Amino acid sequence: MPRFRITLLAFVLTALFGCAVTQAPSAPKDNLSALQDIALTSPLAFDIVKSLTVEVGPRIAGSKGDKRAVAWAQAKFSELGFDKIYTQPVRVRNWERGFADAQVVSPFPQQLVITALGGSIATPDTGITAQVVMFESLTALAAAPLAEVSGKIVFLNTRMQRDRQGRFYGKVVPNRVNGAVAAAKQDALAVIIRSVGTANSRFAHTGVMRYDDAIHKIPAGAISTADADTLEAMLQGEQPVTLAVNMQAKDAGWQTSYNVIGEYTGTTRPDEVVLIGAHLDSWDEGTGALDDGAGVGIVTAAAKLVKETLGQPQRTIRVVLFAAEEIGLMGAYEYVRANKADLPNIILAAESDFGAGKIYQMDTRFADAVRDEPQSLYKRLESLGVKLGNNTTNGGPDVSMLPKYGVPVIALKQDGTYYFDYHHTADDTLDKIDQDDLQQNQAIWALVTGYMANSTFDPRPAEPAQ
Amino acid sequence: MPRFRITLLAFVLTALFGCAVTQAPSAPKDNLSALQDIALTSPLAFDIVKSLTVEVGPRIAGSKGDKRAVAWAQAKFSELGFDKIYTQPVRVRNWERGFADAQVVSPFPQQLVITALGGSIATPDTGITAQVVMFESLTALAAAPLAEVSGKIVFLNTRMQRDRQGRFYGKVVPNRVNGAVAAAKQDALAVIIRSVGTANSRFAHTGVMRYDDAIHKIPAGAISTADADTLEAMLQGEQPVTLAVNMQAKDAGWQTSYNVIGEYTGTTRPDEVVLIGAHLDSWDEGTGALDDGAGVGIVTAAAKLVKETLGQPQRTIRVVLFAAEEIGLMGAYEYVRANKADLPNIILAAESDFGAGKIYQMDTRFADAVRDEPQSLYKRLESLGVKLGNNTTNGGPDVSMLPKYGVPVIALKQDGTYYFDYHHTADDTLDKIDQDDLQQNQAIWALVTGYMANSTFDPRPAEPAQ
Repeated sequence: MPRFRITLLAFVLTALFGCAVTQAPSAPKDNLSALQDIALTSPLAFDIVKSLTVEVGPRIAGSKGDKRAVAWAQAKFSELGFDKIYTQPVRVRNWERGFADAQVVSPFPQQLVITALGGSIATPDTGITAQVVMFESLTALAAAPLAEVSGKIVFLNTRMQRDRQGRFYGKVVPNRVNGAVAAAKQDALAVIIRSVGTANSRFAHTGVMRYDDAIHKIPAGAISTADADTLEAMLQGEQPVTLAVNMQAKDAGWQTSYNVIGEYTGTTRPDEVVLIGAHLDSWDEGTGALDDGAGVGIVTAAAKLVKETLGQPQRTIRVVLFAAEEIGLMGAYEYVRANKADLPNIILAAESDFGAGKIYQMDTRFADAVRDEPQSLYKRLESLGVKLGNNTTNGGPDVSMLPKYGVPVIALKQDGTYYFDYHHTADDTLDKIDQDDLQQNQAIWALVTGYMANSTFDPRPAEPAQ
Repeated sequence: MPRFRITLLAFVLTALFGCAVTQAPSAPKDNLSALQDIALTSPLAFDIVKSLTVEVGPRIAGSKGDKRAVAWAQAKFSELGFDKIYTQPVRVRNWERGFADAQVVSPFPQQLVITALGGSIATPDTGITAQVVMFESLTALAAAPLAEVSGKIVFLNTRMQRDRQGRFYGKVVPNRVNGAVAAAKQDALAVIIRSVGTANSRFAHTGVMRYDDAIHKIPAGAISTADADTLEAMLQGEQPVTLAVNMQAKDAGWQTSYNVIGEYTGTTRPDEVVLIGAHLDSWDEGTGALDDGAGVGIVTAAAKLVKETLGQPQRTIRVVLFAAEEIGLMGAYEYVRANKADLPNIILAAESDFGAGKIYQMDTRFADAVRDEPQSLYKRLESLGVKLGNNTTNGGPDVSMLPKYGVPVIALKQDGTYYFDYHHTADDTLDKIDQDDLQQNQAIWALVTGYMANSTFDPRPAEPAQ
């Protein structure tokens, strides 16, 4: 991209902020310092998450809660003085959890805590009562003789390890997503999994699961890690274990959800867009404070604080609150479909969707040739504990489809040590957010957004994803 | 009590253990050392709790689970070679939790996690829908004008602080026990309390509540601390908050439960009794691992390890697993009633009922004149991190009625910092027990039991309680 704008930028910045810009590209240091100070102490991100969790609460895609969330987001953008507020319809399949119950019938009658996996069919009204067969992994299940599995309830009992990066999620989550298909292939009646979570607790972790049109559908649920321990202990005994499972989840048909978008329009380069996002939907048992109320608060507050502290941005800041992330990034795909012609205008896209832990690293996907340019930003982030990581990220979930169009993305990596204690449970509530950590996030996002929206740094096109 | 037995004891101990007893009263050091080493590493207490929680699970007094627990306890004593195993019937009122639901109707429709308090009546079938009025304490409720409370749902929102000794439980628990009576006096329709618990979580904490025959009964429930935060935030807004509460708890009539007692009969002084206990019942949502499976494991294992390591005790070791502690120490009162003539034979009584945290202090209630005698025991305990505390304890809940009969008691005080995170919730499960901490408990209890059962130290009569 052309570099001749730098001279103009220097002039404009000098005029606007009364300080010399000696080296481009950069935003004026003094003002980023002010932004940093304000964003490290502002309650705005927390206030936004609190408002969303108290006034809306659970908001699974297509539900009444989701519709209230859409209205809430528009009202919040309006309250915060965004210049342009609009929505994009997203057709989603609504799913209702309903009643769920699991009981060991023998040898030791006991209630287990179970939750249906998102998208699961129901059991028959009277439930399913059958012997349980336990496997340590999908691989072990696939290797089992049909006779060992046929007519039984499969229990996938893979433990998840705690990790700052949440790396073990990817290793364990296939049980949840693919367990029903794998178990149905072996003629099982139902599948239950050890919750994909890191806490010892009795909250069961839900999350999306998939069927395969070629394989008949069976019900799928998750039991809490504590109940998985209990069931495992029973199965390690000598007697067969019989379980009665009853889940009355149902598909509630097509509904319309919406991506909700708020913009502060750029002054000098309005068609250059800094896109920061989070997802508005949540699962239905918690209030979606960590997933992804925190992200909604962080990016919305960051945009507002940039506007408030640095003035109207030169480039357009676009906050996108994506619909229906949890059930398969539906809003994000719709965003790409509906805005294909505009994608080349996106200077940077990023999503906050990993809770509210402190940010420790920024990965990027920038044009290699310019990646080293924004040293002043990198140094500032480093002073806040954020190291520069790799240049090969795909960004967060809802921006992960953008790199293949050459859109530069970043991932501001958060400490996820405790994220999967609460993820997709009823326990994902406001009290799990540490306000200091949230303010650190808010400050980092404000600095990156403020810098990108007020500099000529242009990392387009990013190396397309493979 | 006569001290002339010391000479005999010295002779017996020398004969039995082949070491000189230079100073009475004491049990031979070498053997207590062996006991200590074994008890600090034995898995026995943990195995017992695991067996109880996996094979029985929830066991609210009078329930089927409680009956299974009684059978389990007898079988466990038998398996561990207790000489004498017997039960004492205890009549208990059985109560069934049933369905419980709470929803904010307006201004912000949202589901709250609620659980009925133990003993509560049900709401009408269609529930109760009314405006909520919040109070910070019972005192504030009592001071409110009738018109402010009448026809409403009272929300008692007192926060509980975390503390090693759990001292704030006593300050907050009156909300639970007396809230319904206090709210009914003001003509409220129902009472809900912020859970008596220290965790930020969505588990609601149940526990016993009381009615007063002179005041009409209203339903009583607890919402989780996270939901209390949400409700509080709504109530701090300007709009009235309407809640719909539906709880279908019921009194299930009289049932018979049992104190289950196992003894290793004393060799030389069988009628002198060292009574160590825990309670067998639990609340109905968790598996009662901390409350009080841990206690059951600790005292049962301690007795067994003493027998195994030091041989048949000189005094009788009596393990009492009390019935129906949770609903009002019913088993303990029945024990006293049925055994009144035997109480003077109890050399020491103690209960383990505060979870599985490490023991840090031993309080006693011994005859003042002899309290300093068992220095060797005190020193050994101190080397394990247990300081000698006061001489005015009432012991644990189920032995708290014994001091007034002159029975010496001790309290082995456990670290309760996290106890009230899980107390009376569905999350009270085996995974909350730290095995090292449990072994420390097991060792302390084994040492005290071993010492008391094999020495002539006699702290009777204790100063009667006021």
